[in-house]
Amino acid sequence: MSDIDPRLLRICDGYTRAVHEKDVEAFLGLYHPSARVFDTWGVWSYEGEQARRKVIVEWFSSLGAERVAVTFDRLQATVTGGLASLTARVIYAAISPAGVELRSMQNRLTWVLKLEGGAWKIMHEHTSVPIGFSDLKGMLLRD
Amino acid sequence: MSDIDPRLLRICDGYTRAVHEKDVEAFLGLYHPSARVFDTWGVWSYEGEQARRKVIVEWFSSLGAERVAVTFDRLQATVTGGLASLTARVIYAAISPAGVELRSMQNRLTWVLKLEGGAWKIMHEHTSVPIGFSDLKGMLLRD
Repeated sequence: MSDIDPRLLRICDGYTRAVHEKDVEAFLGLYHPSARVFDTWGVWSYEGEQARRKVIVEWFSSLGAERVAVTFDRLQATVTGGLASLTARVIYAAISPAGVELRSMQNRLTWVLKLEGGAWKIMHEHTSVPIGFSDLKGMLLRD
Repeated sequence: MSDIDPRLLRICDGYTRAVHEKDVEAFLGLYHPSARVFDTWGVWSYEGEQARRKVIVEWFSSLGAERVAVTFDRLQATVTGGLASLTARVIYAAISPAGVELRSMQNRLTWVLKLEGGAWKIMHEHTSVPIGFSDLKGMLLRD
């Protein structure tokens, strides 16, 4: 990760910390208010913060006494004057109050970030898991 | 689509045309040779053209007498001097030799593009379909 722009690593750290702390405001503060988010789960597209806030509140409150440990790896990034992109694998691990990892899942993550008023904000996020041909193709094609 | 930078619309047109013509070289020519692709189907990540060429060849040859009509809509784009991003819904429709639409599916698409030697090349592509909570969560968490 040493060749990744430290300003982008700080966004990754901020994401990890906001999820660990279940801090809705810190989490949403990483994003531009009009960010378009293509999320792994359930919804085709979130257009702006208003649509997404409820889901983040529900995610964090659904965790109960558990916490989620986020790890970014396989990072690639490109930064220009006012626009940046970052891609990674993100591992979400559920941790019990006793510190035991209960389960985990992986997502592919893409961020597009824009510099606004001296701060990098996520303008677009795309997370997903690839779909297996054999087991799921028929199901998805019914949509 | 009128507010989208025409240079990015040309990439969309080139993609649509290459798929319609089943032209592997034209298709791969839209991408930087080292592009990282997170595809909807089957594979976690393609790192560079070599890994992906075989899949594109197989996709086009699997179509037989059918053709695929690609439509981009719900476009959003940001362009700076040397870096750009584009997000969209992409509809892939299978068309019979008689011109009848046989079936279609939708993907969410993210592109990150870089200007190199005067040409915009796709450095990163992320396509996906969101996963329903109820039917698929258990299956994916077994990975």
